Amino acid sequence: MNAEILAVGTELLLGDIVNTNAQYIAKRLAEIGINVYYQSVVGDNSNRLYQSFELALKRADIVITTGGLGPTNDDLTKETAAAIAGKSMVLDQKSLDWIESYFSKLGRVMTENNRKQAYFPEGAVIFHNAYGTAPGCAIEVGEKKIILLPGPPREMKPMFENSVIPYLSQFQDGVLVSKVLRICGIGESHVEALLKDILNAQTNPTIAPYAKTGEVTLRITSKAKTKDEASKMIIPVEEQIRNILGDHIYGEGENTTLESVVAEMLIRHKKTVATAESCTGGLLAARLINYPGISSVFMEGAVTYSNGSKINRLGVKEETLSKYGAVSKETAEEMAKGISQSAGTDIGISTTGIAGPGGGSDEKPVGLVYSGLCIDGEVFSKKFNFRGDRQNIRERTVISVLDWVRRVMEEKFR
Amino acid sequence: MNAEILAVGTELLLGDIVNTNAQYIAKRLAEIGINVYYQSVVGDNSNRLYQSFELALKRADIVITTGGLGPTNDDLTKETAAAIAGKSMVLDQKSLDWIESYFSKLGRVMTENNRKQAYFPEGAVIFHNAYGTAPGCAIEVGEKKIILLPGPPREMKPMFENSVIPYLSQFQDGVLVSKVLRICGIGESHVEALLKDILNAQTNPTIAPYAKTGEVTLRITSKAKTKDEASKMIIPVEEQIRNILGDHIYGEGENTTLESVVAEMLIRHKKTVATAESCTGGLLAARLINYPGISSVFMEGAVTYSNGSKINRLGVKEETLSKYGAVSKETAEEMAKGISQSAGTDIGISTTGIAGPGGGSDEKPVGLVYSGLCIDGEVFSKKFNFRGDRQNIRERTVISVLDWVRRVMEEKFR
Repeated sequence: MNAEILAVGTELLLGDIVNTNAQYIAKRLAEIGINVYYQSVVGDNSNRLYQSFELALKRADIVITTGGLGPTNDDLTKETAAAIAGKSMVLDQKSLDWIESYFSKLGRVMTENNRKQAYFPEGAVIFHNAYGTAPGCAIEVGEKKIILLPGPPREMKPMFENSVIPYLSQFQDGVLVSKVLRICGIGESHVEALLKDILNAQTNPTIAPYAKTGEVTLRITSKAKTKDEASKMIIPVEEQIRNILGDHIYGEGENTTLESVVAEMLIRHKKTVATAESCTGGLLAARLINYPGISSVFMEGAVTYSNGSKINRLGVKEETLSKYGAVSKETAEEMAKGISQSAGTDIGISTTGIAGPGGGSDEKPVGLVYSGLCIDGEVFSKKFNFRGDRQNIRERTVISVLDWVRRVMEEKFR
Repeated sequence: MNAEILAVGTELLLGDIVNTNAQYIAKRLAEIGINVYYQSVVGDNSNRLYQSFELALKRADIVITTGGLGPTNDDLTKETAAAIAGKSMVLDQKSLDWIESYFSKLGRVMTENNRKQAYFPEGAVIFHNAYGTAPGCAIEVGEKKIILLPGPPREMKPMFENSVIPYLSQFQDGVLVSKVLRICGIGESHVEALLKDILNAQTNPTIAPYAKTGEVTLRITSKAKTKDEASKMIIPVEEQIRNILGDHIYGEGENTTLESVVAEMLIRHKKTVATAESCTGGLLAARLINYPGISSVFMEGAVTYSNGSKINRLGVKEETLSKYGAVSKETAEEMAKGISQSAGTDIGISTTGIAGPGGGSDEKPVGLVYSGLCIDGEVFSKKFNFRGDRQNIRERTVISVLDWVRRVMEEKFR
């Protein structure tokens, strides 16, 4: 089976927005074994949209569109698909009820044009939109299928996961189950090298690694007759992967983040924390505070960018700064200890480094970073060398420091 | 004239990367008055690439491709374009010299397959690649044009600006000059409403607004026989826009940011600064520290997330917190004054608010934020109401506070 992705929207043709939907859908289709040979973008123009549908149906078994399901006159995707399929538009009362309730919940009046969103080509399988007023749907055109999805990613993605994947799996004879492992402290190519044998041998389950700044995600997807069976197939593969990658795996699931893992550890062990940042300038604290429940353990953060503030605020010794420099193991350790003492917390975390573009030397190049960690009075430190621009070095510092803190805490509180 | 954008690369079809090139090119073409009706993506497959070229040449006057110019066997774009145009591939010595020098500068040996990148369809106009080894080019197919660009955005973008825009402008009889104005404190639709008459009447120069989180950018583009003439045409339009938008315009140019404007103001007026953050949790300090030269004026940041740290660290009165709450004008003002006193700076900036998802009430809903500002002992404050998720509220707070601080300082130091 192969699919074609057709994004509809003049805002894409004008370059007002990036077509992230195409990437998301392409990635997920690849993971479930459906090939994509073409992606296209067309505007809110009836003729060109019709021609694009015709072409896509000629080239692919499944055409998946995003956008053009809204209430206004230039939202044409459903109507054009119906014309192509030779089907009339009929009202779906359940969808209309949902749209009405959606507006009433927001305390707003539903305008008449919103009724349009409750009409679908006859015989369509309707996909509920939990996050908006435009339901999606699937229609059949002979042997082929057209799947119509809303444009906003926060509506499209959950619909894709909850409705499209199950819809597609019925043609793939079997159900799909997938599990995400989250990895840090090791690059994508290194992950691939370590898992080479497993990746080369993969058929079912499939294993797809992908990278984002400083992290790697691994999605294991299995196919079987039942959900239960598919879930069971993941277990031995996951175990194999866990044996190889060990504590590089910091968590599992779509919504798990490094900061959530660290925050939950702190909360579980009832440890309060404070941060002292130089090169990261507040990003580390900001990242921890991403976790909504952090307030019970996060007491204070200090951005001590100048030498003066390191001395006055954290009690770093003047001698340490002059002897070893602000970017040194010794300074990092005194910063971590200093912030935990002055904030009265169990744990102190510090960063000090050269983020560039200036300030580097042969001995201490741009990208050199030290982090300090003080846990119940015991002091640790770690040296990092990063590449990239100022922004990149600071982001990587935050990720690597959180990952290091996670590992030290795991060791210590095991 | 209309153009079609064709991205070539299996990594796009697999969803490994997002097609940001299409957005960039579409945006720039719209700005110079070239319509785009279709964008497509096709893999590194000779047949499908050939068919995509044929189709695009049927539909558009100009076909612009990205990707597939590299040294390996699956880089097929140039060869396929040559086949479509019925041209043979010939060596360009200048390009080969460049590629060789590029490798020798990196201290690496050029492998034989890199020679491929110096071959072009006969008669091609060659575009120098200042940031990589794959030059781009333009070829003519009858009345139509094919423009081939490299895939990596950091190579594609400068080539587009430095070579493609001038190349295209020869068919547009005139040169293009553009200028960017950066706007904050007012939404995109509000900008459009205020500039409605100018936007409706625009022909030359054209005016294109676009939005990113909390900011709006306005690009004014003029076309004339000479660069000088085109530059002069921008002046009266810019003046008109500046008269309407006033101090909502915080700067000009691609690389100007709110933090750079605030930082340069602080440096110019020799004012030191410290921050005290609650809801933004370090993001404000981190944003200021984005500006590489900030170290001469940024002394210290405090992330005082708990009430205890607001009292101990900033000297906020317990009475203030119990009477008005942590999220209040009074607390914000005491925080700003407190941090400037304890850090010994001329200026103190504070944030306190409810970023959600929990913690909101009818009286103090999620999204309510107060900011305090203390300049040479004089205290100001401002109340904001934001919508969105935790991340969004915090980002908008940082932008809005920086914008407010900029305006107060402009007033004060005028």
